[in-house]
Amino acid sequence: MEAPSMPSERPGRIMSGEMAEQPAVLRRILEEGAPRIREVASAIAARSPRFVLLAARGTSDNAALYTKYLLEIRLGLPCGLTSMSTTTAYGARPDLTDVLVITVSQSGGSPDLVASAKAAREAGAITLAVTNNPDSPLAAVSEFHIDILAGQEKALPATKTYTASLLSLYLLVEGLRGGDGAAAKVLPELAALVLSRQDEVRQLASRYRFAERMVITSRGYGYPTAKEAALKLMETSYIPALSYSGADLLHGPLAMVDNISPVIAVVTDGKGGEALQPVLDRLRGRGADLVVIGPQSQVDAASAGFVLPTDGVPEELQPILEILPLQLLAYEVTIARGQDPDAPRALAKVTETR
Amino acid sequence: MEAPSMPSERPGRIMSGEMAEQPAVLRRILEEGAPRIREVASAIAARSPRFVLLAARGTSDNAALYTKYLLEIRLGLPCGLTSMSTTTAYGARPDLTDVLVITVSQSGGSPDLVASAKAAREAGAITLAVTNNPDSPLAAVSEFHIDILAGQEKALPATKTYTASLLSLYLLVEGLRGGDGAAAKVLPELAALVLSRQDEVRQLASRYRFAERMVITSRGYGYPTAKEAALKLMETSYIPALSYSGADLLHGPLAMVDNISPVIAVVTDGKGGEALQPVLDRLRGRGADLVVIGPQSQVDAASAGFVLPTDGVPEELQPILEILPLQLLAYEVTIARGQDPDAPRALAKVTETR
Repeated sequence: MEAPSMPSERPGRIMSGEMAEQPAVLRRILEEGAPRIREVASAIAARSPRFVLLAARGTSDNAALYTKYLLEIRLGLPCGLTSMSTTTAYGARPDLTDVLVITVSQSGGSPDLVASAKAAREAGAITLAVTNNPDSPLAAVSEFHIDILAGQEKALPATKTYTASLLSLYLLVEGLRGGDGAAAKVLPELAALVLSRQDEVRQLASRYRFAERMVITSRGYGYPTAKEAALKLMETSYIPALSYSGADLLHGPLAMVDNISPVIAVVTDGKGGEALQPVLDRLRGRGADLVVIGPQSQVDAASAGFVLPTDGVPEELQPILEILPLQLLAYEVTIARGQDPDAPRALAKVTETR
Repeated sequence: MEAPSMPSERPGRIMSGEMAEQPAVLRRILEEGAPRIREVASAIAARSPRFVLLAARGTSDNAALYTKYLLEIRLGLPCGLTSMSTTTAYGARPDLTDVLVITVSQSGGSPDLVASAKAAREAGAITLAVTNNPDSPLAAVSEFHIDILAGQEKALPATKTYTASLLSLYLLVEGLRGGDGAAAKVLPELAALVLSRQDEVRQLASRYRFAERMVITSRGYGYPTAKEAALKLMETSYIPALSYSGADLLHGPLAMVDNISPVIAVVTDGKGGEALQPVLDRLRGRGADLVVIGPQSQVDAASAGFVLPTDGVPEELQPILEILPLQLLAYEVTIARGQDPDAPRALAKVTETR
């Protein structure tokens, strides 16, 4: 009998084990996966795509959003995130000549993603599937495939497949621009360092024991981290967690933040963090309980936080580290509330949407 | 002295008046605005854009998302919503030849939108501004401009500018495909009919008097309505309202829904509503308090709801009616909680983000 179908003996045992695997998974991608990703990148670069569409759901959608920032900023390629229902429910058939369609899915099994990738290929797109399962239907219908090499993921909340998707997609974009992705070499060791500080996160988690809602904000490269952190908190602890880019927060939802609304800000060390400064000032002005994930100086100016090692880490790679304390936070808050992060109510590991 | 800078005598007086103007605004767009929108559409169609990027924030971002569905489904043009910070914070300069960039902004004044439209034009894009202010900086930097003719909006929560944007953008897309938009002629009368049923909405609002969170879901054309309803509720009543496409709800956030979590589903009469059915079944199975905005049969199968007149209204036009009871709901819940919907704390009418 396999573990996934049985209740875990210790709540969160599976999720905990999978979070801990992340440094090894990142190393595996850099050592074993990178050459294959480089090949895929040069084959795609030879086709000179003019636009990129990204299709994904849930955690993979946050990896897709990260890729959108990379493609726009580092490659200057205009991008869009697809609204899958336009194809699957409404039968839209756009002309996708010169368009690269990247579909990201841990399982590679959701029927709507498979249908949308198939339709894209028929419409002339260059199709790439990024999955944790090379034998999946999604990999089969796509022209190119990248295996994120994370090993089977058994806990319902995706953790190692998220960071594995980010790094694989980073290497893809570096490959498309002819780079070697060498800057990523520091990640496995730094990831291990961050994960070793679980006690600090447990301390931080205690302040959310009775939180009834949370707002998570960031800007630029850190925005996908904010969205992924909100998803992780919701699906494990059931706390309604709202994520906004800092700019969008000022256009309405800020009204909701008061001195009993906890706010977590993901502050990258770079231009995204700089662009977030006016938002942080407004939040402090409203008396928000502001917890920062970011460099030392940013944490010092907040109510509390987790200092991220960002020295020598380019801004575009920081999201791979930023999410780690937030995965741990979702885990710790859930344990503190007496729930089991491995098996959130109502969810199945492979979600079949059509 | 003008009203906007003074506290309103009766809470919600300004918002209430502006919601009531909507049938007249829709009629004005159909009668006075349509010819100019048609001209802009043919000038743009002659340039044969291959890809569309939409830039907006807050309420206008929901109008942009509606436009994305229209463009993909009715025109077969691949679309993306821009992440403004890639241009304004990171200085990305993509090649935008053959790309139509539509910027939607009620005020036309937010510096990041102006900067992003200007950069797009310099990068070779066909630029179109859709605003409620023809004299705005955004209109000035854009090659084309559509005036949504809503008249000055004074309440902080945008209502009439939202439906005016939707109708203007619908007419633009119809113009791009060579249609005349005649199907929209029924809207002013139906909008008046829906708005006349405020007592029903007040009744519905009473169930949210003590709600601590809300989930709003839809699929396809109704999804922008779900997002806009969540924004309206948050900025007026301060209830944390989470919006998800039905498919995304199943990929994680469903765990958060239980029998004390109110869910509002926007069910369009058409393919989007059909695609939402499995989600509605799952929600009912989890004992959610499900309130439906949609056709009679859908409301009958829910805990409660508001029946929308959808006979003879094509699915792509229903969002212009769907949002009306939800605007009223945000208003009524806020009044019931003793707050003033005209002046949410922390917000300014023209939000300047950079």
